[in-house]
Amino acid sequence: MNSSITHFTQFDSKALGEQLIQDALYFKTNPRADITKGRGKRIGCIFLNPSLRTRVSTQIAAQNLGMEPIVLNMDKEGWALEMKEGAIMNQGTVEHIKDAAGVLGTYFDILAIRAFPTLTDKESDINDYVISQFMKYTGTPIVSLESAIRHPLQSLADQITIREHSQENKKPKVVLTWAPHIKAIPHAVANSFAEWTSGMEHDLTITHPEGYELDEKFTKGVKIEYNQSKALEDADFVYVKNWSSFQDYGKIHCTDTSWMLTEDHLKNAPNAKIMHCLPVRRNVELSDEMLDGPRSLVQKQAENRIYAAQSVINHLLDSNF
Amino acid sequence: MNSSITHFTQFDSKALGEQLIQDALYFKTNPRADITKGRGKRIGCIFLNPSLRTRVSTQIAAQNLGMEPIVLNMDKEGWALEMKEGAIMNQGTVEHIKDAAGVLGTYFDILAIRAFPTLTDKESDINDYVISQFMKYTGTPIVSLESAIRHPLQSLADQITIREHSQENKKPKVVLTWAPHIKAIPHAVANSFAEWTSGMEHDLTITHPEGYELDEKFTKGVKIEYNQSKALEDADFVYVKNWSSFQDYGKIHCTDTSWMLTEDHLKNAPNAKIMHCLPVRRNVELSDEMLDGPRSLVQKQAENRIYAAQSVINHLLDSNF
Amino acid sequence: MNSSITHFTQFDSKALGEQLIQDALYFKTNPRADITKGRGKRIGCIFLNPSLRTRVSTQIAAQNLGMEPIVLNMDKEGWALEMKEGAIMNQGTVEHIKDAAGVLGTYFDILAIRAFPTLTDKESDINDYVISQFMKYTGTPIVSLESAIRHPLQSLADQITIREHSQENKKPKVVLTWAPHIKAIPHAVANSFAEWTSGMEHDLTITHPEGYELDEKFTKGVKIEYNQSKALEDADFVYVKNWSSFQDYGKIHCTDTSWMLTEDHLKNAPNAKIMHCLPVRRNVELSDEMLDGPRSLVQKQAENRIYAAQSVINHLLDSNF
Repeated sequence: MNSSITHFTQFDSKALGEQLIQDALYFKTNPRADITKGRGKRIGCIFLNPSLRTRVSTQIAAQNLGMEPIVLNMDKEGWALEMKEGAIMNQGTVEHIKDAAGVLGTYFDILAIRAFPTLTDKESDINDYVISQFMKYTGTPIVSLESAIRHPLQSLADQITIREHSQENKKPKVVLTWAPHIKAIPHAVANSFAEWTSGMEHDLTITHPEGYELDEKFTKGVKIEYNQSKALEDADFVYVKNWSSFQDYGKIHCTDTSWMLTEDHLKNAPNAKIMHCLPVRRNVELSDEMLDGPRSLVQKQAENRIYAAQSVINHLLDSNF
Repeated sequence: MNSSITHFTQFDSKALGEQLIQDALYFKTNPRADITKGRGKRIGCIFLNPSLRTRVSTQIAAQNLGMEPIVLNMDKEGWALEMKEGAIMNQGTVEHIKDAAGVLGTYFDILAIRAFPTLTDKESDINDYVISQFMKYTGTPIVSLESAIRHPLQSLADQITIREHSQENKKPKVVLTWAPHIKAIPHAVANSFAEWTSGMEHDLTITHPEGYELDEKFTKGVKIEYNQSKALEDADFVYVKNWSSFQDYGKIHCTDTSWMLTEDHLKNAPNAKIMHCLPVRRNVELSDEMLDGPRSLVQKQAENRIYAAQSVINHLLDSNF
Repeated sequence: MNSSITHFTQFDSKALGEQLIQDALYFKTNPRADITKGRGKRIGCIFLNPSLRTRVSTQIAAQNLGMEPIVLNMDKEGWALEMKEGAIMNQGTVEHIKDAAGVLGTYFDILAIRAFPTLTDKESDINDYVISQFMKYTGTPIVSLESAIRHPLQSLADQITIREHSQENKKPKVVLTWAPHIKAIPHAVANSFAEWTSGMEHDLTITHPEGYELDEKFTKGVKIEYNQSKALEDADFVYVKNWSSFQDYGKIHCTDTSWMLTEDHLKNAPNAKIMHCLPVRRNVELSDEMLDGPRSLVQKQAENRIYAAQSVINHLLDSNF
């Protein structure tokens, strides 16, 4: 089996998912096993939004493969991109995404891009406008470092973590539970987690207040259970995450703090491990008790971000060059 | 022939220009041919103003020669330099350029510096104050990444691009045309392009509205033609660029949109290629039609920025160590 | 003798100080002598406050040992850390230091951290809260790049510089003199300089206006002399530095410009060399005359920052792996 992809922006197939998990676990024991594979090749990490884990883990992953990563914080370095086709650029934007994408594609062998949603322009967001423009104009393989609607490297890291902590020969029960937050948060992590967890054929339940249904594109065939306690029963893995409303786009409807996970919520799930992509608002999304206790896998997920990225970059190097 | 320079801040001679173009074309086919030449040496890329192409192309160029580039975005990283000799520093500036330049010269083997003009203090700008201070106090070779009045790496990349697209045995007709813009823009790109194009002995015409004459220092012996259509006749290369007034320093006098280049402007220049240094304000400086059409060389110029920088750094490594 | 430390955040012992000075002087003549020692290892340089010299010198030091440095400007890159244990994070902070420190400890082999004091919360500052939290939660060796109360890499560089300019068989007379400034400045450089200079058993006098006494923890056994002229008599090294009041915490009590060092102040110290950690407010803390004259060692101190950092990182690599 040799699944091949041009870009890495979403879940592709269980076969490729499996291959990427295996490679990641291999790199985790031998981070620099393929240190010469990317020699002389460059990855440009383009951040239209800030990042900590994603930036560092991607840099390390690339260096582990011998590549030279260059980070561009375009938000902070003051480079406002024009996104509209045909725009008369007599306002604040200094460069059209067409031109910037073309140049960056010339300078790098792989482009890794972070571009958050607007949370106000639903049409643009569901079309994943920014990363789509890069895919259209760049001409090089693209890795999503979180787009408007997906965060595939996070989800791959999550699948690696689930694999490491699963019992053999048991399909794990995975629950994605909504959690409170004080800000309107994107759907990308939740969407991608649903997409990958059902794609890898785990037993997935999503629980959230009514009105917080995710885009059906990502939850087809997945159990939705509005009663959180019921959803959590006998869970093996509980993924905690806030998102804003999708239907009433980008709005906050619920601030009910009883949705915040505590030990008490898991009395019927004695073996449940807790997951979160970080950064986490402590005592808002998840209690200290959970995060600092033995159920928490959050630090392990963060560590696996390195090997998820390395597995994907390795795959793109194999596929495209 | 072995032309040697200590710094790279301006056009030197046709002989050196020729050598740099040849080396650039060589590196373009073999980017890492001299990967060990700069080993153990460091280039500091100091940005007092933001940059995309210049930053990335210089980093790549240095890495292609085995050097370790370190980027300092001094504008964004909050390090306000005092520029005045003898200043009593009881205001907002935190460090004198003398001290910073001395330290940076100790830390790096080559310093590459970007420092835009004020566009308000003409005296300071025409003396190229900031880069001159670095040259005075640093003690290492300096590469200009665009100073108040010149952008020599851009101009070298432009000459490489002209060379690649010229017919053999024909002196190309090159036209530098002013274009509209909504902001007051520096003269550096236009000055340097004029300096290099006439220095390389091409047939150069400059066209612009009256009142937009560039500093004569850069246009000595060059044809000035106020009638844009007449200037563009039979052009081989049309370089499109805005600049603010030099006489009425830093002011915008003309906003006449008819100066924006479209296909219609080139009806008497069937073979004309279009050039621009990027970033470009689409449909303000140049129409989409031009930029997306077959006449455009703008992406090729951007690509050549790597090899221009590499050729220059290579030359400094040969000259100074 | 083989002194070993887990972290480098303060003066340890004269024996270790001596070893670090010797190693630094060795690396100064052979910067890349141990270029393979750190291969495959990473240092994360985390800046909660801006930096020029510290950032660049640490990067170079790490590269000289073959390590891959990654710089995170957390202040500028918009990553507000929550510092309070048990905080309900429903305000502006996006990530708890516990979680961030844990992740960074997973990603790097050594963490180097800059975290200035608040100058308003004395309790928190004297407990060196931020760096202590990193030490508690990170699990990797930590190098202080200036904490709330100490700047040990600066002080090591200062000791190297004193060593280079001392006469053999003469205990140098070292004077730390307060200087005026327009802002409230931390005590870290002064504290550490006192700690290291007395730790290395030099003859140290501190002079400052009354009310500017440093924390006694750092000045035990050191001569305090309020009369600046008297303190400066026969000095071999004069370290010039501003700090705000420690007793009336973070306040400015004195703006007396006569404390600014000029040649006239040194009429009874003919051999005195002048030191300052930079950045320096010229003609506020120190006159141009001093800084540009033959007494100044400030550029040499800055250069020694590289070898101080390299000596320490080298030591941590030897101790911890």
